[in-house]
Amino acid sequence: MLIKDIGEFDLIKRMSAGLASTGRPIIAGIGDDSAVLPASEGRLQLVTTDMLVENVHFRLDFAKPSQIGWRSLAVNISDIAAMGGEPTYAFMSIGLPGKTTVEFVDELYSGIQRIATNYSVDIVGGDTVSAPQIVINVALLGEVEAENLLLRAGAKIGDALVVTGDLGGSEAGLTILKDDLRLEGTKKHLMPVPRVQEGRLLAKSGYVTSMIDISDGLASEVHHICEASGTGAKLRMNSIPLSDNVRQVAECAGREPYDLALYGGEDYELLFTCHPDKVSSLTENMLKICGTPLTTVGQIVEKSRSITIKDISGNITPLKPHGYNHFAPRR
Amino acid sequence: MLIKDIGEFDLIKRMSAGLASTGRPIIAGIGDDSAVLPASEGRLQLVTTDMLVENVHFRLDFAKPSQIGWRSLAVNISDIAAMGGEPTYAFMSIGLPGKTTVEFVDELYSGIQRIATNYSVDIVGGDTVSAPQIVINVALLGEVEAENLLLRAGAKIGDALVVTGDLGGSEAGLTILKDDLRLEGTKKHLMPVPRVQEGRLLAKSGYVTSMIDISDGLASEVHHICEASGTGAKLRMNSIPLSDNVRQVAECAGREPYDLALYGGEDYELLFTCHPDKVSSLTENMLKICGTPLTTVGQIVEKSRSITIKDISGNITPLKPHGYNHFAPRR
Repeated sequence: MLIKDIGEFDLIKRMSAGLASTGRPIIAGIGDDSAVLPASEGRLQLVTTDMLVENVHFRLDFAKPSQIGWRSLAVNISDIAAMGGEPTYAFMSIGLPGKTTVEFVDELYSGIQRIATNYSVDIVGGDTVSAPQIVINVALLGEVEAENLLLRAGAKIGDALVVTGDLGGSEAGLTILKDDLRLEGTKKHLMPVPRVQEGRLLAKSGYVTSMIDISDGLASEVHHICEASGTGAKLRMNSIPLSDNVRQVAECAGREPYDLALYGGEDYELLFTCHPDKVSSLTENMLKICGTPLTTVGQIVEKSRSITIKDISGNITPLKPHGYNHFAPRR
Repeated sequence: MLIKDIGEFDLIKRMSAGLASTGRPIIAGIGDDSAVLPASEGRLQLVTTDMLVENVHFRLDFAKPSQIGWRSLAVNISDIAAMGGEPTYAFMSIGLPGKTTVEFVDELYSGIQRIATNYSVDIVGGDTVSAPQIVINVALLGEVEAENLLLRAGAKIGDALVVTGDLGGSEAGLTILKDDLRLEGTKKHLMPVPRVQEGRLLAKSGYVTSMIDISDGLASEVHHICEASGTGAKLRMNSIPLSDNVRQVAECAGREPYDLALYGGEDYELLFTCHPDKVSSLTENMLKICGTPLTTVGQIVEKSRSITIKDISGNITPLKPHGYNHFAPRR
């Protein structure tokens, strides 16, 4: 049997199943955005790692070296944001072909340093090896107060499902690049902006019951929250906040606009759940402090009601967990 | 300018030079075997990361999947051992071609779990992505008491340069595989055994002034210790403890036996410095507790006397820092 036949998520389950524990404390391990480990005096350590491979996660004809550097750290910072935490120390492993220019590496690192400075991250280690194509692995540490930790598990029946910012912009940007469309708006794809400040505000509010970052598309992330929380969910398609250029790009590319938000991924917005009564005060605070809009896209329901979406015409259908899945890619 | 023209070590210096600090405490950053960060109550956190790439670090026709898994964690555990610490939590990022079999991944993970169990490591996170060839990145956390931390810096003039175990066995094993020699002895190459217990004993002794693991060959590591400590060193070639099969393999392959130890790398033994008066008691304790021999291979001298080696004929020559260097490989 080949791994492309079982796909990324079943492969991860299979690999995790065989792992033994030594008995050392683990607050959250495989299966959340970051691992959560005990630290000192009411603080928890967060650890996340992501590997980016040339021609899988980025293309040299689409992205500048500095944008690749930015993005490699951004996707990891977003995993820390999704726990309600702040990033601290980063470790960069980089595989490069021998024919890479020194100037390329300088630019790559200028992008890494730029986002590290913006998010107050120290790069304190790594590995540099030769490889047939560019591979970047970031391991990122972070921290969060024990009382502010947010996991994927914790959503309650009746909770609102809320997203930060707008969705589909990254997929729209990628489509512009892939289809060589003469449209603006590739930045959200090339240089995603992790929502650390927003995640901190949500975590400290005390109102949020679960959180995840939107790396694989809204549909996939709703499934992750429901699976971890033991719930179902109902979404309303026309509540999903679309990025400015999504409709235009979708029209040019002959795609459904909401598909870009639901299945496109890589927006690195936050998806969270909270009691519906708390949404308006959270929204007001978020706009005032971070300037970031919040939008309710659905509601948590009993598990037995499964995960559904009401489309523009009012038809309710099961929401497929499609999104980016390594080994079995469908886009 | 291409990175293969400047080589791995100059590239790392160039990348590190542009990095800014946020002011967060860093006890040791880029330039030692592991980064050292503050933890709680007199303890320090160690973090190391290593990337292994198919056909650069391992070959599928030489190594079984379980051996590749073992080795990927072993080389990281060795970096923690080199600081006098113990490994704790590991994060595995794995890039795999879609045509990889599920059985391959199962075997890879059985090797990972086997060494994790042997060294009491918990695997608590990672990333699984598609890639054109196999890439494995491990990020490994560890810890050490503040008073037991050992760095590359700290060697004093007059200190003995001492190694654990014997050297050249990994390069001999690789030569057997590459040249298809009909000889035994590939295990030290395929499944290196990190010296955690030995590193702990040395760190706790209070006698050791600096330490490093031998990943790039003895010659390269002596240079690293001397550079960090601001010293020179003199080695005696005929003091270097050779692994059992080194002479036989060297003869078959038409190579100098000591070259395998000096420039071969990947032995994952420890190289450390201590006052010469302490060597005999350390050696006795090490044999009694770990069953591992210690051998003095040279002495730390003034920086002005540079780094030299006395060969078998009694000629003293500068010791070149040759060893494995990514982008500018010479073996």
